[in-house]
Amino acid sequence: MELYIGNKNYSSWSLRAWLMLEKSGIEFNEIKLKLFTDSFYQQLKEISPNLKVPALIDNDIKVWDSLAICEYINDAYMSGSAWPENLSQKAKARSFACEMHSGFNALRNELPMNIRATRCIQLSEAAKKDIQRIDTIWSQQMDEFDTGKTGSWLFGTWSITDMMFAPVVMRFHTYGVAVSDSSRRYMKHLTQSPEMQKWIAAALEETEIVNEDEAGVEL
Amino acid sequence: MELYIGNKNYSSWSLRAWLMLEKSGIEFNEIKLKLFTDSFYQQLKEISPNLKVPALIDNDIKVWDSLAICEYINDAYMSGSAWPENLSQKAKARSFACEMHSGFNALRNELPMNIRATRCIQLSEAAKKDIQRIDTIWSQQMDEFDTGKTGSWLFGTWSITDMMFAPVVMRFHTYGVAVSDSSRRYMKHLTQSPEMQKWIAAALEETEIVNEDEAGVEL
Repeated sequence: MELYIGNKNYSSWSLRAWLMLEKSGIEFNEIKLKLFTDSFYQQLKEISPNLKVPALIDNDIKVWDSLAICEYINDAYMSGSAWPENLSQKAKARSFACEMHSGFNALRNELPMNIRATRCIQLSEAAKKDIQRIDTIWSQQMDEFDTGKTGSWLFGTWSITDMMFAPVVMRFHTYGVAVSDSSRRYMKHLTQSPEMQKWIAAALEETEIVNEDEAGVEL
Repeated sequence: MELYIGNKNYSSWSLRAWLMLEKSGIEFNEIKLKLFTDSFYQQLKEISPNLKVPALIDNDIKVWDSLAICEYINDAYMSGSAWPENLSQKAKARSFACEMHSGFNALRNELPMNIRATRCIQLSEAAKKDIQRIDTIWSQQMDEFDTGKTGSWLFGTWSITDMMFAPVVMRFHTYGVAVSDSSRRYMKHLTQSPEMQKWIAAALEETEIVNEDEAGVEL
């Protein structure tokens, strides 16, 4: 199985699919493409019908888009266990994941993922509203599942919802976004997981610098 | 089961969830909220955590976001049959659905759904690229599944992917977007389904006019 990803410092959508594969424990080959070069688009043509990363090749099966990859891995290799078992919790987890997958445009445009940067920026009202909604989701889930107050995954055990929010956790860290104590516990829990530590270490070792405007594009 | 939707003329994301429920044959109560009024937000507060339509209430289960609602109905009532059974086809169907769910921003911004309007507009290069990609998806699927050349669903039998693209079919119709013959067969097939005919008839009967800028917002 091959997972094609972009640069680890910038490519927020790659992080989601990569983290899903790491968490699932499935063996896979990670292939990192050099962003926005001629060879990047040339290679993408062969593997990803929408010319974006991440893309997963599993023998003759192609999957692209971060959420579709998570759902595929869950279906094909995890017997559905990457969503909460309880139907009501699963509905909630999927609603959060889908909310993140399709929305929060102001946040995504104004705070592109850039793991090695630490910046302070002026946020628009729309971005502030996005941040507030995410803070509400995280803190509400911590109130329910993080009973020991030491931090936990959003639904106790990890789920696809955590994969969807992982890039936002990185953004909130590097841009110093103020959130509630509960949300900070979630951010700490996710960031300190061995898989995230591995991604972050690799991101910090990268030297590739792409045009910042392009870096804002979700890859 | 209650499905809360917005105006049928404008609310593209409501159409997806509504069509899914109609196609599934499950009985449900449709509750149409009056867009952007004080009572709209007041009612949404009670039912939809992200203050958007569509939102589904199934006894004590709440689901919001169009894709999450489709996945929920498929899980809870259809034993998974709203995706193709074959794993490879399912991966492709989900990739298309997710691509539509999270992308095509230029298309969505420049061509807001407005079923009663017929307009010609100048499209940006980005919107043209979006249209080209969608045309490729539809025509490729018709080449594979519409062997009788009379139009069919994207994967032969209807799937969640068709629900995701339904609003785009309406946009292409009303804005007179030029697409391939194969894609036109798909558009005709979807538009002529009894469920879509029911939605369109209801949309055309509506008299509510909202600010066009607001109408562009995906509800």
